[in-house]
Amino acid sequence: MSQTPPERDDADAWLPEVQPEVYGISPDLVRAVAEALDEGKTEEARELAAELHEADLADLLEHLDRDGRPQLIEALGTGFDLEVLTYLDDSVREDVVEALEPKHIASSLSDLDSDDAVDIIEDLDEEAQARVLAALPQAERLVLEESLSFPEDSAGRIMQRELLAVPSNWTVGETIDYMRASKDLPDDFYDLYIVDPKHQPIGYVPLSRAMRTRRPVLLTDIMSDEMRSVPVTMDQEEVAYLFRQYGLVSAPVVDDAGRLVGVVTVDDVVHIIDEEAEEDLLKLAGVQETDLYSAVLDTTKSRFTWLLINLFTAVAASIVIAIFEDTLQRIVALAVLMPIVASMGGNAGTQTLTVAVRAIAMRDLSSSNALRFVGKEILVGLANGLMFAVVAGAVAWFWFDAPSIGFIIAAAMVINLLVAALSGALVPLGLEKIGVDPAVASSVVLTTVTDVIGFFAFLGLATVFLL
Amino acid sequence: MSQTPPERDDADAWLPEVQPEVYGISPDLVRAVAEALDEGKTEEARELAAELHEADLADLLEHLDRDGRPQLIEALGTGFDLEVLTYLDDSVREDVVEALEPKHIASSLSDLDSDDAVDIIEDLDEEAQARVLAALPQAERLVLEESLSFPEDSAGRIMQRELLAVPSNWTVGETIDYMRASKDLPDDFYDLYIVDPKHQPIGYVPLSRAMRTRRPVLLTDIMSDEMRSVPVTMDQEEVAYLFRQYGLVSAPVVDDAGRLVGVVTVDDVVHIIDEEAEEDLLKLAGVQETDLYSAVLDTTKSRFTWLLINLFTAVAASIVIAIFEDTLQRIVALAVLMPIVASMGGNAGTQTLTVAVRAIAMRDLSSSNALRFVGKEILVGLANGLMFAVVAGAVAWFWFDAPSIGFIIAAAMVINLLVAALSGALVPLGLEKIGVDPAVASSVVLTTVTDVIGFFAFLGLATVFLL
Repeated sequence: MSQTPPERDDADAWLPEVQPEVYGISPDLVRAVAEALDEGKTEEARELAAELHEADLADLLEHLDRDGRPQLIEALGTGFDLEVLTYLDDSVREDVVEALEPKHIASSLSDLDSDDAVDIIEDLDEEAQARVLAALPQAERLVLEESLSFPEDSAGRIMQRELLAVPSNWTVGETIDYMRASKDLPDDFYDLYIVDPKHQPIGYVPLSRAMRTRRPVLLTDIMSDEMRSVPVTMDQEEVAYLFRQYGLVSAPVVDDAGRLVGVVTVDDVVHIIDEEAEEDLLKLAGVQETDLYSAVLDTTKSRFTWLLINLFTAVAASIVIAIFEDTLQRIVALAVLMPIVASMGGNAGTQTLTVAVRAIAMRDLSSSNALRFVGKEILVGLANGLMFAVVAGAVAWFWFDAPSIGFIIAAAMVINLLVAALSGALVPLGLEKIGVDPAVASSVVLTTVTDVIGFFAFLGLATVFLL
Repeated sequence: MSQTPPERDDADAWLPEVQPEVYGISPDLVRAVAEALDEGKTEEARELAAELHEADLADLLEHLDRDGRPQLIEALGTGFDLEVLTYLDDSVREDVVEALEPKHIASSLSDLDSDDAVDIIEDLDEEAQARVLAALPQAERLVLEESLSFPEDSAGRIMQRELLAVPSNWTVGETIDYMRASKDLPDDFYDLYIVDPKHQPIGYVPLSRAMRTRRPVLLTDIMSDEMRSVPVTMDQEEVAYLFRQYGLVSAPVVDDAGRLVGVVTVDDVVHIIDEEAEEDLLKLAGVQETDLYSAVLDTTKSRFTWLLINLFTAVAASIVIAIFEDTLQRIVALAVLMPIVASMGGNAGTQTLTVAVRAIAMRDLSSSNALRFVGKEILVGLANGLMFAVVAGAVAWFWFDAPSIGFIIAAAMVINLLVAALSGALVPLGLEKIGVDPAVASSVVLTTVTDVIGFFAFLGLATVFLL
C-alpha cells in the first residue's frame, strides 16, 4: 500500500499478486488449520479460526476436506456463529449442519435476522427442519413457518422482517426519539418507511436525509413517494432486476393486501445476482449447479444427463455422415476436412448464442429489438462466412491440390456460418418465448444444428459436384 | 398483486407473465416512442419519455435504432439528465454523447456525483474529453483530472469524492447539527467516517447506529474500527470481492498515505459484479464484450479473431485425421464414428472447465484445494468415461455389426474423457498461474486437446488393432 500508483499495465501485474492477501483467507491459513486439526491440536485450530469474519470462516470450512469440517466445528464449539451457514455452499452446509447440535442451532437461530434464519432453515432436509423448528420458541417458529410458506426463491424468502415503519404524523424528532428508545430495531438499515393506518407503505426516507433534517419537520414532508415495492411472491430474479435497474439499497416487501411485511436489502441481492450469473454460465456448459464441493458420485450423476443428450446429438451427426459413406470411401480428403466446417459453425453459433442468452437474462433483448438483433447476426454470419470461406477454401485447395474441394468447403462454410448465426439468435429467443430457460437448452440445440448442417452441406455438395 | 400466493409451480408460470410490466420499460412504450419520432411528433415522444427513471430512459435509448436516439435526445433538450449516460452501454453512449451539446454536458456534469461524472468522461474519445473538461469550472476540472489519473478499472475511478468525515472528538449531537447545517453532503450515504488529524480513517459508524444513539455520546464510543478500506489503486474486481465477501454497503477509499479520499458504494459494485460475470460468460464463448448494440462491422471484426484461432485448431485436428487416411479408406465406418469421441471429450471437458473458471473467479478454487479438485475431476471423468464407453461401444457394435469397432470406440472414449477432465481442470488453473485470464483462453486450448486426442486415440487404436 506504500507503492505509488503504478501505470495501467503494472497495476494489472501487481494487483493479483499482492491483493488476495489483504482480504479473505490465505492458502497458508487453510494449511495451518488443516494441519492443526490433523494433529489433534484442537485449541490451535480454534485460535486460528476464532477471529475470522463469518464469511471467511465459511471459506475456510469449504476449503477443508470432509473430515476437517466437523473437526473444526467441534473445536469452535458454542463459539460457532450460525451466520457462517448463510455464506456456505449448499453441499458443504449439509455437512456442517450435521455436525452441529440441534439445540445449538435452535438457540442461536433466534439471534439472527429473520432472512438469515430462513436461509439456513429452508435448505435443511425435512426431518432436520422439523427438529430445529420444534426447538424454537413459538413466536419465532410461527414467523419462520410463515416465511417458509412463500414460494422458494420468492421475495418472501429473502426479506427480513425487522424494519422501521412509522406512522405518517410523526416528525423527524419523534422518530429519532423512538429509535433511541427502541430495542427492537434491525442491526443495519438504510431507509425508514412511513405507513398509513392499514400498515401500507406510503413513502420512505433514506436515513441520511432524515438525519440532516430538523426535528420539527414531518417525515411526510421529506419522504419520497416513488415506492418501488416488492410483492411478497415476486421471484428473486425479478427483485434483483429491480435493485440493479434502479440502484436500490433496500426495498419494502408488501403482502397481497399491500401491507408492509418486510424489507429486502442489497446484500441479499448481490448474492442472488452472483447466483443467477453463475447458473447461466454453468447451464450453458451443461452443469446444473456448482459442484465444486460435491462428492464424486453426485457430480458424475449430475453431469451424466447432459453428456447423454450430447451423445444423441453426436450420433445424429454420425448418421448424417453415414449417408455419405460412398462419397467418403472415394474421396478420403473429405473425412479429413469435414470436422472443420462443423467446428467453425459450432463456434460462430456459440458466439451469437451467448450474447443472446446474456442479453435476454439482462432484459436487453426483447420483442422490441429481436428482429434487429436477428438481422444483424445474419449479416455478421454472412460476413464471417465469406471470409472463412476464402481462408478454408485456400487451405483445402493447396493441401489436397484440388480446387474443387476448396470451392466445396468454401460453399459449405458460408452455408453453415449463416445457419449458425440464425440458430444462435433464434434458438434462445424461441426457447424464451415458449418458457424454457434459454441457458439450459440452447447450446445443445445449436450444436446439433451446426453439426448436422455442417456435415450435410459439405458432404452433400461434394457428392453432387465431385462424383 | 391481488392474487393469493400461488403454489410453486403456478408461481413460476405466473411471475414472468405479469411482472415485467411492473418495472422497467415495456415493448409497447418503445414502439410508441419510435413511431412518434418517425412521424416527427417530437412533443409526443418527449412526453412519453420525460417521466421515466434515468435507468429506464437509458433502456429506451438502447432499444431505439441509431436514427431514433439523436431524435429523442433532441426532443428532450435540456431536460435530458446526464445521469442517464451512466446506465448506457458503451457503444450506445458514444452515439448519445455525439448528439449532446458540449455546453450541456459541461454544465450538467457539475450536478452529478463525482463517480458518475468520471464514469461518463472516461469513455469519451480524447478530443471530446478535452472539450468537456475545458468547459468545466477549474475546481471541478482538477478533481476529475485527478480521478482520471488513476488506473482504469481501479477504485479511484469508481469512488465518489462526496462523503461525510468527522473528527474523532465529535459527539453524535455535534454530528447531527453539522449535518443539518451543511449543504455539501452527498445525496445518499450509509456510513459516516471518523478521521484522525492526518485525515486517516480510524473507524466508521453506520447511520442507523448513529441515529439511535443519544446526543452526548462520542462517535468513537460507538464506531466500528474494523475498517475494510480500499487503496485507491485497487482493481475493481478486488473491490467487488470485498463487498461481496463481507456484505458491505460502502467502503472508504484511501490514498498512498492512508488518507480518506473517497467512498465506494454498493450500487457501483453491483454494476461491476454484473460486468465481470458477463465478461467471463462472453469470453468463454469467444466474444470480447457485449456487442448487442455494436454495428455489424465492429461485431464481425471482434468475433473474427476467435474464429480464426478456432480454424487453426480445427486444422490441427484435421492434420491428425490425415495421418490415418489409409485406415479411413479401408474402414469408412471410422469416419462416421470419429466425431462422437471428439465431441464427447469437448463437452465433458467444458463442464469441468466452466466449473473451474467460475470457481477461480469467485476465489473458491485456489492452491489450497486445487489438488483435491483435479483429483475429483479425474475420478468423475473416469466414471463418465466408463459409462459412455459402454453406451457408445454398444451403439457402434450394433450399428456396424462389428464388436471390434465397439471396443475401440469404448477405449478411445475412456481415454478422451480422462484427458478432457484433466485438461478441463489443469488448463484454467495453469493459465491463472501464469497470469492469463482463464476465461479468455481456456476453451480453445481445451477443445484443441480433446479434438486431437479424440481423433488420435480412436483412429490410432483402430490402425493398430483393425488393420
